[in-house]
Amino acid sequence: MRLATIRTAAGTRAVRVDGDRAVETGHADVGELLAVPGWRDVAAAADGPAHDRAGLDYAPVVPRPGKVICVGVNYGAHIREMGRDTPQYPTLFAKFAEALIGAHDDVVLPAASEAVDWEAELAVVVGQRVRHADEATAEAAIAGYTVLNDVTARDWQYRTLQWLQGKTFEATTPLGPELVTPDEAGTGLDLTCAVDGEVVQRANTSDMVFGAVATIAYVSTIVTLDPGDVLALGTPGGVGHARKPPRYLTPGAVLTTAIAGLGECRNTCVAEKRA
Amino acid sequence: MRLATIRTAAGTRAVRVDGDRAVETGHADVGELLAVPGWRDVAAAADGPAHDRAGLDYAPVVPRPGKVICVGVNYGAHIREMGRDTPQYPTLFAKFAEALIGAHDDVVLPAASEAVDWEAELAVVVGQRVRHADEATAEAAIAGYTVLNDVTARDWQYRTLQWLQGKTFEATTPLGPELVTPDEAGTGLDLTCAVDGEVVQRANTSDMVFGAVATIAYVSTIVTLDPGDVLALGTPGGVGHARKPPRYLTPGAVLTTAIAGLGECRNTCVAEKRA
Repeated sequence: MRLATIRTAAGTRAVRVDGDRAVETGHADVGELLAVPGWRDVAAAADGPAHDRAGLDYAPVVPRPGKVICVGVNYGAHIREMGRDTPQYPTLFAKFAEALIGAHDDVVLPAASEAVDWEAELAVVVGQRVRHADEATAEAAIAGYTVLNDVTARDWQYRTLQWLQGKTFEATTPLGPELVTPDEAGTGLDLTCAVDGEVVQRANTSDMVFGAVATIAYVSTIVTLDPGDVLALGTPGGVGHARKPPRYLTPGAVLTTAIAGLGECRNTCVAEKRA
Repeated sequence: MRLATIRTAAGTRAVRVDGDRAVETGHADVGELLAVPGWRDVAAAADGPAHDRAGLDYAPVVPRPGKVICVGVNYGAHIREMGRDTPQYPTLFAKFAEALIGAHDDVVLPAASEAVDWEAELAVVVGQRVRHADEATAEAAIAGYTVLNDVTARDWQYRTLQWLQGKTFEATTPLGPELVTPDEAGTGLDLTCAVDGEVVQRANTSDMVFGAVATIAYVSTIVTLDPGDVLALGTPGGVGHARKPPRYLTPGAVLTTAIAGLGECRNTCVAEKRA
């Protein structure tokens, strides 16, 4: 099953996507849907107003997650090329919901940054409250998978030792287009990031050190995970900052973040306008 | 004016605290109140059911802030004793709302940590939406001040380079008891942290490198700040981890975090119970 949050003239709506049609479920967004007990059956049975999939205006698939938790340093080949050891624990940092944008929205390049970079990532969305989850419970708590680009202001990321400030600029982080349930998503997914059609990152999610299940179990030791919470599972090699010379996103650049079977975000970069 | 969120038999309620009385404002909590345009006048005029202040059961003063943003490395004397230079930029990291507890609630010491430490802090709560705020706008956006203890699992904080996982364990972070508006709070406040009555941290908030106004202005360059958002402004020297030998919180310890004029959080540490 595929779910999305779309923008309509009457506000956002959660939809179930069936082939070339999208059917409203009766909820304002996928976050609200996931908070409903038995949401899988509710979504499967929904039969609301229908839309053509081709013309959908995608909001972030979960527009206001309670938590967005990101994993750093998580792809084996990238860790080895950096000369690092495989980490014993996931590196975790946060992003605020204000950073999220829809799959076709513009990425706003902050006026305050000279070094905005890409980070294509698989994201997992939580579908059930969990705390102290073992692996089976963590797996059962997965609502589905989607595409995220952890667009990062490198200059701000490295101003201090803590990355948060470079990671959470407003309207920088595509999330979507659709949430794909695990049965349909499968595993070992090819992930690519392209800038103006040139592939700059290419990996398979099987190279992740901490997968979705392990990450959910780990985080749930610390804090309760709730329906709609988003975990971004790290990026492989090929980021612009590590290139010689470094390469960053510029106004007009088209950033395409794709994961096989899940779909793609295709976002145009625009310079921030100041009032 | 002093505001609080209290627990009643019917759920949480925002109250205005007048001397030894607390008067309900008609909102579920202070976060909901702050989201109302003209909340200062609304709160000042409120005349709902009254409670004795002495018997109040305080919830976190904002139970579910959209964002909790913490500043690290922010007290001059502590920075100098560590041999560091005064930072050019604030170090920022996040905490999730699930970490928050009320002013008299138990601090849950995670079973997974062997090194839970204290960090007494002044917190500022946002009362008006701001983005790209100059200092005057940032100052006008302050709803008020309160007390926070950024209780930290040091072993988890330092598992990786990013501190988040040590900073956001469930039910560890007192926030309250009351929100005090700037006219009543004043500036240059004495702050103390005590464990079982022994003062372990003592400082004045005038020693902060980045004060409330500067921090709000800085963060608003990155992301919109909304009513109810909480910024914790860092801790002075005297934490347990830096002692020789290190000293940590243990079950039964009473942690008292006090700021002159704002009030105090008094929390008993308890070992986490696992189902």
